[in-house]
Amino acid sequence: MSVSRRSFIATSAAATLGASSTAAGGSTALGTQARPADDTMKGVSKWDLDTPALCVDLDALERNIAAMQSRLRALKVASRPHAKTHKCPAIAKLQLASGSIGICAAKLSEAEVFSANGIGPILMTTSNVSPAKIRRAMALRRSNSQFVQAVDYAPNARDLNDAAREAGIVADVVVDVAVGSRSGVPAGDQAIALGQLVDRLPHLKLRGIISYDGGAQHIKGFKARLDQTLNRFAPSLETFEAFKRSGLSTEIFSGGGTGTYNILPRADGVTDVQVGSYIFMDCQYIEIGGESNEQVYDDFLPSLTVVTTVLNTYFPKSITTDAGAKALTLNRPGPWVLGEHEFTYNAGSDEFGVIRYETARRSYAVGDKLDLIVPHCDPVVNEYDQLYAIRKDRVEAVWPIVARGKSQ
Amino acid sequence: MSVSRRSFIATSAAATLGASSTAAGGSTALGTQARPADDTMKGVSKWDLDTPALCVDLDALERNIAAMQSRLRALKVASRPHAKTHKCPAIAKLQLASGSIGICAAKLSEAEVFSANGIGPILMTTSNVSPAKIRRAMALRRSNSQFVQAVDYAPNARDLNDAAREAGIVADVVVDVAVGSRSGVPAGDQAIALGQLVDRLPHLKLRGIISYDGGAQHIKGFKARLDQTLNRFAPSLETFEAFKRSGLSTEIFSGGGTGTYNILPRADGVTDVQVGSYIFMDCQYIEIGGESNEQVYDDFLPSLTVVTTVLNTYFPKSITTDAGAKALTLNRPGPWVLGEHEFTYNAGSDEFGVIRYETARRSYAVGDKLDLIVPHCDPVVNEYDQLYAIRKDRVEAVWPIVARGKSQ
Repeated sequence: MSVSRRSFIATSAAATLGASSTAAGGSTALGTQARPADDTMKGVSKWDLDTPALCVDLDALERNIAAMQSRLRALKVASRPHAKTHKCPAIAKLQLASGSIGICAAKLSEAEVFSANGIGPILMTTSNVSPAKIRRAMALRRSNSQFVQAVDYAPNARDLNDAAREAGIVADVVVDVAVGSRSGVPAGDQAIALGQLVDRLPHLKLRGIISYDGGAQHIKGFKARLDQTLNRFAPSLETFEAFKRSGLSTEIFSGGGTGTYNILPRADGVTDVQVGSYIFMDCQYIEIGGESNEQVYDDFLPSLTVVTTVLNTYFPKSITTDAGAKALTLNRPGPWVLGEHEFTYNAGSDEFGVIRYETARRSYAVGDKLDLIVPHCDPVVNEYDQLYAIRKDRVEAVWPIVARGKSQ
Repeated sequence: MSVSRRSFIATSAAATLGASSTAAGGSTALGTQARPADDTMKGVSKWDLDTPALCVDLDALERNIAAMQSRLRALKVASRPHAKTHKCPAIAKLQLASGSIGICAAKLSEAEVFSANGIGPILMTTSNVSPAKIRRAMALRRSNSQFVQAVDYAPNARDLNDAAREAGIVADVVVDVAVGSRSGVPAGDQAIALGQLVDRLPHLKLRGIISYDGGAQHIKGFKARLDQTLNRFAPSLETFEAFKRSGLSTEIFSGGGTGTYNILPRADGVTDVQVGSYIFMDCQYIEIGGESNEQVYDDFLPSLTVVTTVLNTYFPKSITTDAGAKALTLNRPGPWVLGEHEFTYNAGSDEFGVIRYETARRSYAVGDKLDLIVPHCDPVVNEYDQLYAIRKDRVEAVWPIVARGKSQ
């Protein structure tokens, strides 16, 4: 482990999030339990929650949302945060209230949930290709005029047009231009032809381009990330210029993420960035380094943690906890135990975490609590039905993760 | 990839599960959608389900349950299946109806869900150490006389005794004897002392010993697994003998799993095995080899798959699907695409799967469906709210995964 990560875990993160661990014995006077969201949880100590417990520190969350808005304002682009990260309408509403121009959704079932929970402006970044999903997407557009759908394939554009006609609407679409080879239409001629097709189809309204580079977000070192991101984005930018020359709509030109929020705006014409993880941060992002700190990406504060309970301390240099792969996923690196920079946490067992260590800053007993920064925030959030919104170590609200499991 | 795994994916698994992929276009006359369980799904084709869809083939599931019962009967031990694998009361009921003597639960919230859904005999294999969980466990025991709780720590036994007294009950407990260093009390003197303490405490009733070896289940090669399992289990067996000599209850002596179901019964005194994955199977288990087939563990049939939809075929030797880490987890190896033994499926993206291949047995188009054996069944099931019970490629029932996310 690098010195910088060590000191980060030992000091700055712990300072942000308060006490990193505390003995649990005797501190559960309220007999609190992680039950469905209700007001009876308000005021309960974070350290008395039933574990594993997914918690977000509200002071840090609010600072992250405000910081992103302030930085993007200076860069003259908007934010359109990806809701696949949090799957919580409560957080989407905070983002919109802070000035975000909309949210993104990765899956149709996710978009439906957000729309049903009062979120209007939704850009669905994945194409819907099955007949049933196409019909549902058009039904969603009929009920929510701010729903925009990605398309990356000509036959799919025709199917969408047919379904929009059947639904009696003109549906808003953006062309998804590939960066890499995961999703989207290849930049250049194929993308331009698709834009022209969409523009001609009477029941579709072209709104512009999305172009997201998943591989760029976690490039370590700001300079390398800057160079590679802009290099990889160049074909998308040329496609955008060709759209403009052809008279195609470029009202939306959206891309980027938490790792490139301050890079993509350097490409002329980008309207908004699809930032997701900045609200929570995680081990994967903290490691990439930022513009002002090459070692630790500290543009945003880690706000999301999982509280776990120590179950077993019989074995030398080893601690077993109640948070395994079903609570933390298998992403790497991490999880990191706040306050204990020498701990190696293995979440490889489904139900247990196993910590190995040579030195510890304190001793641990069965029942003690530990607070963990998670490896990768999106899939960890997707393991839980609720998120405890914590202020100064007390529950302020319990947010249902309403779109949890909406992977369809 | 080994030749044996290749031929398994290409032939036997595909034969078991029927067609491995099918074009989706035009076959969705019912406009089916993965919505909450209801009877309107009955009869819908597996290939028309909204994807990613978690499916179990009922013929294979029933054969697996019957095969395990028949083999264990010959070995003169019982089954006490671990419900952490399926989290479905519907499947627990099938297991109990086939002759299982009870189920295991890994977490208290899981045990509560199964008990509330009509499952009586539940052995909770993890200790409950927080004051709130201890109270809840004793409340569960009060409402369900067949609930048995593991203990591995003397202060915890005293806490359980106190809570049982407050609840006005005598609570059934088993001593969890460690194999390895993850959970449980070390075998030998400490375990015997704990058994004697439990035996003395007036509000606890000692029922015996559990001793599970997580590390043994996936040892590749039957002979190596046999030798290591029995070797590692020897201290537990000695502890069991000491319990008997001391007059402590040995009514329950439970351990083992799907990888050792036919090994642990060779240890004298074992009463039952805590098999879990045998109902579904997965890539991890298929690879360990069995007693009669060193290459492929074919004692049980793969019954669990995830159906995914092809989203993108623009890029050479590459297919993008709609099932990523939130649908399949990051466990290795796998997932395996049924019928395509040369495909390498990467579920590393949260929302997308990316297949790389050199040769394919057929061509694929956007909208086509693929059927996947999952890497590791337990955490994949935990990603979904419902399991489609399929017979001859048609939905026979939709089973709510009621204990999904009950990791507390």
